[in-house]
Amino acid sequence: MSFSIGIVGATGVTGEVTLRILEERSFPIKELRLFASRRSAGRAIRWLDRDWTIEALDDGHFDGLDLVISATDASIAREQAPRMVEAGAIVIDQSSAFRLDQSVPLVMPEINGADLESHRGIISGPNCTTAVAAMALAPLQRAVGIESIISSSYQSISGRGRDGIAEFLDLSRKAVEQPDALRGHESLALLEAQQFPKLPAFNVFPQCESFLEGSDISTEEEKMEAEMRKMFHAPELLVHATAVRVPVLVGHSVSLGMSLRRETSPEEAREYLSGFPGIRVVDRPWEGEYPTPIDSAGIDEVLVGRVRSLPSLENGLSLFACGDNLRKGNALNAVQVAERVLGIA
Amino acid sequence: MSFSIGIVGATGVTGEVTLRILEERSFPIKELRLFASRRSAGRAIRWLDRDWTIEALDDGHFDGLDLVISATDASIAREQAPRMVEAGAIVIDQSSAFRLDQSVPLVMPEINGADLESHRGIISGPNCTTAVAAMALAPLQRAVGIESIISSSYQSISGRGRDGIAEFLDLSRKAVEQPDALRGHESLALLEAQQFPKLPAFNVFPQCESFLEGSDISTEEEKMEAEMRKMFHAPELLVHATAVRVPVLVGHSVSLGMSLRRETSPEEAREYLSGFPGIRVVDRPWEGEYPTPIDSAGIDEVLVGRVRSLPSLENGLSLFACGDNLRKGNALNAVQVAERVLGIA
Repeated sequence: MSFSIGIVGATGVTGEVTLRILEERSFPIKELRLFASRRSAGRAIRWLDRDWTIEALDDGHFDGLDLVISATDASIAREQAPRMVEAGAIVIDQSSAFRLDQSVPLVMPEINGADLESHRGIISGPNCTTAVAAMALAPLQRAVGIESIISSSYQSISGRGRDGIAEFLDLSRKAVEQPDALRGHESLALLEAQQFPKLPAFNVFPQCESFLEGSDISTEEEKMEAEMRKMFHAPELLVHATAVRVPVLVGHSVSLGMSLRRETSPEEAREYLSGFPGIRVVDRPWEGEYPTPIDSAGIDEVLVGRVRSLPSLENGLSLFACGDNLRKGNALNAVQVAERVLGIA
Repeated sequence: MSFSIGIVGATGVTGEVTLRILEERSFPIKELRLFASRRSAGRAIRWLDRDWTIEALDDGHFDGLDLVISATDASIAREQAPRMVEAGAIVIDQSSAFRLDQSVPLVMPEINGADLESHRGIISGPNCTTAVAAMALAPLQRAVGIESIISSSYQSISGRGRDGIAEFLDLSRKAVEQPDALRGHESLALLEAQQFPKLPAFNVFPQCESFLEGSDISTEEEKMEAEMRKMFHAPELLVHATAVRVPVLVGHSVSLGMSLRRETSPEEAREYLSGFPGIRVVDRPWEGEYPTPIDSAGIDEVLVGRVRSLPSLENGLSLFACGDNLRKGNALNAVQVAERVLGIA
């Protein structure tokens, strides 16, 4: 059996990675249709030794599509996804548009795949940082139960798309020309970013997405709490996130502290983690074995290590996790959901 | 009144910044003597429009020196500092050699300056990350009291000295040449670091300093707990640190969560913070006002922002702080201690 698949946002970073993953997994495709903005319409993308012409999303008709993987802004998703469902397609939407909609399942297959049964056409994928953190926490949530989570993130640049990546590389090329590294901040202060709220090269900043006027929490940080509660079916779960951008191309990292329902040793926790699909435990720090974003980039598993007791929290445990924000944090999860709803996996 | 001052490790990063700070503060110097390894002996360093010849530390005699600011490895400090004290000098040692020695005060003047009274010749300065975190926490420790701390750090490259900085810049120059950023991890994986346990360019890794065989905590992480307890006179204080290296030249950042002795609103906390010497509160995130390491580099204050309630901890509060690891994290603090013990400040 094979399927008619649509990719919305085909020219973007997520679109590119989605096509790569469909190829890697030999996804059974009968017909492939690529959609993007009007600006890209008519261009062709090479995939599986064939040229595929891009259609303008605005003018798009979706008849005959079995499933659409959509990576666009939330505002575009809100407009277009219902049209696709009306035309008979299942839509896996990677934007934030429907994630908290009660009638839309928000799914990572390893965590709450059963929620897919209730879908009415639209299925949401989580925010990329939420996805990495949720994977690392899910084995402990399932085996023991989690009361609260404290997260500090190290989020890569690629979450900001092609323009963000290009600007980051350009600014980094300027930043590396340091006649006097100890006074480097003086020349770095002259570099200006358009795609980021602060200089993304040789810098970190505690802002991902935006802050509403007068708000002390970023929209990115709000997402982690709301989405984690929904995927874990844990409406009382406390999640406190600090979202920080770092100069890394691909791979989001999270330093997580958690309070568990009962005392759990690091050894026991590592067993739950190793036994969970999609997780690889790397935790022999004295041998240099721990997660890094570069090691997590390009692979399917989320890497988890630095598992330790955390005495400041009741039944406290901490860990460090890294995952590819474009793959498990986005396109891979979408393809896994697609395989599941289409009965391939 | 003016003094005979020795700088040990004069050719290193800390030595350079110490000399700059002595100049900035018009430190009253009668005689300046510079010490370094035998390799550098005989070379001259330009300071205040004069050439100062470097002496070999090994052969050094320290007679006539009032005070020495020493930035060397702990092993060298253990050997040399007692010789300097014997010769009549007060030694401000920036290494870890004496920090936890009960007969040696470990001091940041704003926090526990009174501890200086008990010194017997040697005074220690804290680890650079501890220093930044301690400054941000001290106002709350003093006004309210802290039960426990959870810290995730974003530590800059310059903590690894000149060789570390040079290697980081070299690897960064290679890392920016990305023909395909989304597959960048493949070329980055080929780059090798000597000065760092993992690639420091376009990467982060949860290892600063080292792990003893079989240990789940790095020596850097251990320091934060022990040193914070000592400076705060709080032997029961729980400190859980995750120390992470990030691709930043100068400026250490910490994402801190804490449990306070009583409920304290972010507004109240900001008042304690703003009233504390050496702290600048920058906390209007919706206007892009929050700490970044680049903004903290080259200045004396530690920047504190993102102050929020943290519901997962009892009377919980979180914040994000950045400080110049070479200045308040090291040389500036040493000079401030020197001013205090010599009665200049």
